[in-house]
Amino acid sequence: MIKIEVDLGDRSYPIHIGSGTLDNISTITKIESRQIMVVTNETVAPIYLEQITNSFADQFVKTVILPDGEEFKTLDHLNVIISALLKYEFDRSCTLVALGGGVVGDLTGFAAACYQRGVDYIQIPTTLLSQVDSSVGGKTAVNHKLGKNMIGAFHQPICVVADTTTLSTLDQRQLRAGVAEIIKYGLISDPEFFEWLETEVENLLRLDAECLAYAIRRSCENKAAIVAKDERESGVRALLNLGHTFGHGIENVLGYGKWLHGEAIARGICMAADLSVRMNLLSIVDYERILSLIGRAELAPRLPSELKPEDLVNAMYKDKKNRGRRIRLVLLRGIGHAFVCDDYPDSEFQAVLTCDRAINEK
Amino acid sequence: MIKIEVDLGDRSYPIHIGSGTLDNISTITKIESRQIMVVTNETVAPIYLEQITNSFADQFVKTVILPDGEEFKTLDHLNVIISALLKYEFDRSCTLVALGGGVVGDLTGFAAACYQRGVDYIQIPTTLLSQVDSSVGGKTAVNHKLGKNMIGAFHQPICVVADTTTLSTLDQRQLRAGVAEIIKYGLISDPEFFEWLETEVENLLRLDAECLAYAIRRSCENKAAIVAKDERESGVRALLNLGHTFGHGIENVLGYGKWLHGEAIARGICMAADLSVRMNLLSIVDYERILSLIGRAELAPRLPSELKPEDLVNAMYKDKKNRGRRIRLVLLRGIGHAFVCDDYPDSEFQAVLTCDRAINEK
Repeated sequence: MIKIEVDLGDRSYPIHIGSGTLDNISTITKIESRQIMVVTNETVAPIYLEQITNSFADQFVKTVILPDGEEFKTLDHLNVIISALLKYEFDRSCTLVALGGGVVGDLTGFAAACYQRGVDYIQIPTTLLSQVDSSVGGKTAVNHKLGKNMIGAFHQPICVVADTTTLSTLDQRQLRAGVAEIIKYGLISDPEFFEWLETEVENLLRLDAECLAYAIRRSCENKAAIVAKDERESGVRALLNLGHTFGHGIENVLGYGKWLHGEAIARGICMAADLSVRMNLLSIVDYERILSLIGRAELAPRLPSELKPEDLVNAMYKDKKNRGRRIRLVLLRGIGHAFVCDDYPDSEFQAVLTCDRAINEK
Repeated sequence: MIKIEVDLGDRSYPIHIGSGTLDNISTITKIESRQIMVVTNETVAPIYLEQITNSFADQFVKTVILPDGEEFKTLDHLNVIISALLKYEFDRSCTLVALGGGVVGDLTGFAAACYQRGVDYIQIPTTLLSQVDSSVGGKTAVNHKLGKNMIGAFHQPICVVADTTTLSTLDQRQLRAGVAEIIKYGLISDPEFFEWLETEVENLLRLDAECLAYAIRRSCENKAAIVAKDERESGVRALLNLGHTFGHGIENVLGYGKWLHGEAIARGICMAADLSVRMNLLSIVDYERILSLIGRAELAPRLPSELKPEDLVNAMYKDKKNRGRRIRLVLLRGIGHAFVCDDYPDSEFQAVLTCDRAINEK
C-alpha cells in the first residue's frame, strides 16, 4: 500500500492507494466516531456496501443508498442525506463515508461540509476518475439546473482510500474517462509522466495492477502538490481546469450524462491544445503526441455536427471560472507546461470551436 | 459612528454602528464588486430597499425579496437566492447584501457560503437581535424540518453595518427579544455591562439613541472577542449559548414562531440561572437580580402549563450542541461568570424543567 500526504496544515490528510485496501478499511481509516453514515449508490451498494459496514463492527453505522447518476447530484438528494443524519440523531462528532464515484463523493462531501456547519468525512472512490481526481482536494458541490457544481464548499476529507481492485468492476468506457484526467496531469506539469503514459497506456487500460497503482499515485501526487499550494483556487489550482472550460461547455450543450465527464474533458484538452498550436505556443509534434495518446485511450471523438459553436460559447461563459466576461482558458506552452490565459485571439478561439482544424488535420 | 474590528486574521472585518449609517452605505462598505445582490424580505423591502439599491448606483444591482418569517429559512428559499444569482449570471467576484433580521442574514450568509463554493457578503441587520448577535460571527444556516440551523456553514461577512434608526420601525416585542441577547453578554463575562443595563434598561427600550448605540457596541465587542478566540465553536464560543439549549428546546416544543427566539432565550437564561442556584453556584441575590432585569424587559413569562418536561428534554437532546447523549448546558458561577457544564445532578435538572422553583420563589 502507498500513502501520500496532502499537505494543508491542520487540514492535512493521507491518501492510501493499493490493492485490497477495502479489506482493512477500519484499520486504515482509524475512524474514532461513534456514529458513521455510509453514503453510496444503487450500483456500488450490492458490491461493496456490506463489506464496508461490517468492518465498522464496533460503531453505530447507518447507510444512505442514492440512485446512480449525475442527475441526482442535487439539493434534493443532499436533503436525503441530511434527513437520514437527523433521523438517526447523528451529532457533530459523526463521520460520513463516501463510497462510490465522483457524484457520491461530491454530494457526501457537501453534506459533511454543511451538516451542523461541518462534520468529518472520508472518501472511498471506486472509479478511476474519482481515484485520480475528484476524491482529492476538498471540492464538494451539487448541481443546479442552471449550472454544474454551482452550490458547494471547499471541505477537505480526513482520509482517502483508493482500492485498485474496485476498478475491475468498472466498464471500459468509465475506465477510459478516468484516463483523460490522468493524461491531464502529465500535460499540466509532469512531462515524464506523460512519456510513461505513452509507453503504458494500453497496460493501464487492461488494468495491469502495477501500472494502475503507479498512475493513481502519480496523479494524486500531482494533484496534492497543486492543492497544497492553492486550496481555494485563487491561483495555480486553476491549472487543474485544463480541458474543463471547453469540457463543461460540451457537457452543458449536449446534456449532462450523454458524454461522460472524462470524455468531454478529453475533447476539451484537444481543443485547448489546438488553440495553443494556433497561437504558436505548442509545436505540431507535441500536438500530434497529445492527439495520439488520447486516441489510443479511445477518447475524444469529434463533436456532433449538430452542436453549434455559438451554443458552446454561451455555455462556456456561464462556467463559474469565468470572472467578468472574458473566458479564461488553460493553454499549453508544451507538454508539461500549462498556463492560464485570457489573452488569446478571438478569431482563433472561434476557429477551434468550429472544429475545422480537428477535421482537417487529425 | 463607531467601528469595531472582528479579529480573525485574513477573515477580519469591521462592524459599523451608528445612527443614519444606511445613508452612506456605499461609502462605508466600499464594495468593489461589479455585481451586487440585495436579499431582503417583504416587511423590510418597502422601508429600506430602494435606499440601498440606489446607493450602489455604479454597480449592477439585483434584488431577491423573500417572505418574512423563520419558516422560510429553508433549502427551498436558499435555492431561490441561488437561482436569482445564476439567472443574472453572477460570478465569483459578486457580493451579496443581507438586509433584514436574523432569518435574512442566516439565509443570505449561507447562500454566500456555498454559491460557487463561496462569495463575499455584507450584513445590514435591521432588528436589535440581529444587530447585537446574529449578524456578527459568521454562523450561517437554514433549518430542516427535524431541527433548527442543521444545514449551514461558518462564513464570515466582509462587513457589518448596523443603523440604530432602523430600530424605530421595530415593534416593542421584537425589541424586547433583542434585549434578551444583550443581557446574555453581561451574564457571560461582562458584569459591568450587566450593572449598566440594570440602570438603563427602560431607556434602552424607549430607544434612547445614546443607550442603543452603547448597548449594541458593547454587545458586539463582547461577541467579537469570543468569536476571535474560537471561530468554529470548539471551545469558549459555546458560552454564547447561555440560555440557548433550554431556549431551542422551548421553541421546538411550542412550534417555531410562537415565541420569538429572544423570548425563548430569556426563559432559557432564567432556567440556567435556576439550575445554577440549585447547584449552589449562584447566589439567590444574583438570581433575583437576573430575574428582575429580565422582568423589567417584560421577557420570560412562565412556560405554558401544557408544556411537558419530557418533551422539552427530548427536544434538548436533539440540539446540535449535545455531543453524545449528555445535554451540555451553560451555567453561571455568578453574574459575568458563565461556564460550560455537563456534570449536573439530573434531579435538579428535572426540577428546573418542571418549573417549580420559578412558580414558588419568583
